[in-house]
Amino acid sequence: MAVAWLDEIKWTGDGLVPVIAQETGTGKVLMFAWMNRDSLTETVASGKAVYWSRSRQKLWRKGEESGHEQIVKEIYLDCDEDVILLEIEQLGGIACHTGRRSCFYRRFVQGQWQEAEGVVKDPAVIYAHRGKE
Amino acid sequence: MAVAWLDEIKWTGDGLVPVIAQETGTGKVLMFAWMNRDSLTETVASGKAVYWSRSRQKLWRKGEESGHEQIVKEIYLDCDEDVILLEIEQLGGIACHTGRRSCFYRRFVQGQWQEAEGVVKDPAVIYAHRGKE
Repeated sequence: MAVAWLDEIKWTGDGLVPVIAQETGTGKVLMFAWMNRDSLTETVASGKAVYWSRSRQKLWRKGEESGHEQIVKEIYLDCDEDVILLEIEQLGGIACHTGRRSCFYRRFVQGQWQEAEGVVKDPAVIYAHRGKE
Repeated sequence: MAVAWLDEIKWTGDGLVPVIAQETGTGKVLMFAWMNRDSLTETVASGKAVYWSRSRQKLWRKGEESGHEQIVKEIYLDCDEDVILLEIEQLGGIACHTGRRSCFYRRFVQGQWQEAEGVVKDPAVIYAHRGKE
């Protein structure tokens, strides 16, 4: 079905659009992922971030395993209509699968990537129930 | 030449990595672009953001026409080592080729993309000298 606001987006050849997730209030950039039409449609309908997992080739309802859902506050589209910026509230305060607040925890310092942000919660605890259901 | 910190990045098949540019201080996300090894190497060496223009297939020294250069303050790499986040100082206060502070100036409101940020400076003025040199 033709949906004007979806059709305004310039999707890649694979039908995807890159998405930046930024924490509302702090402005911290938490993660980067991809969406397809279905995931963006569901994001808008549910008010929670739903990405497209390129590795698993399926909808990725952020937080479905970890509980770290992202409540969407605002959605922005860029000048070229091919990148989306989400302002979100990060439940649990952890966006990264490593148990850190943000995925961007390595800082470039004198020719090396140095860890600049510690683990808030052990992933073994976050994903303790994975595969048991 | 093998450079360890460059080799740690998981480049796409085209030899690129997506890059988010965020304004230091305000936390405002200004733009999204791509880099290849040469552009990231030059970014680090010069301290100014240098992207790879996929449309023109050449190095894109941000601000070379507009004067709106980006002074790089910090460089971050994400957990999957395939996305870069730059913290930059935006000279001229304008990152977008439309003359706006940020490229993400369209906000999703009730099924429409609405302009949420005005033009700071007319692009015709910014790029007045384009093609005359």
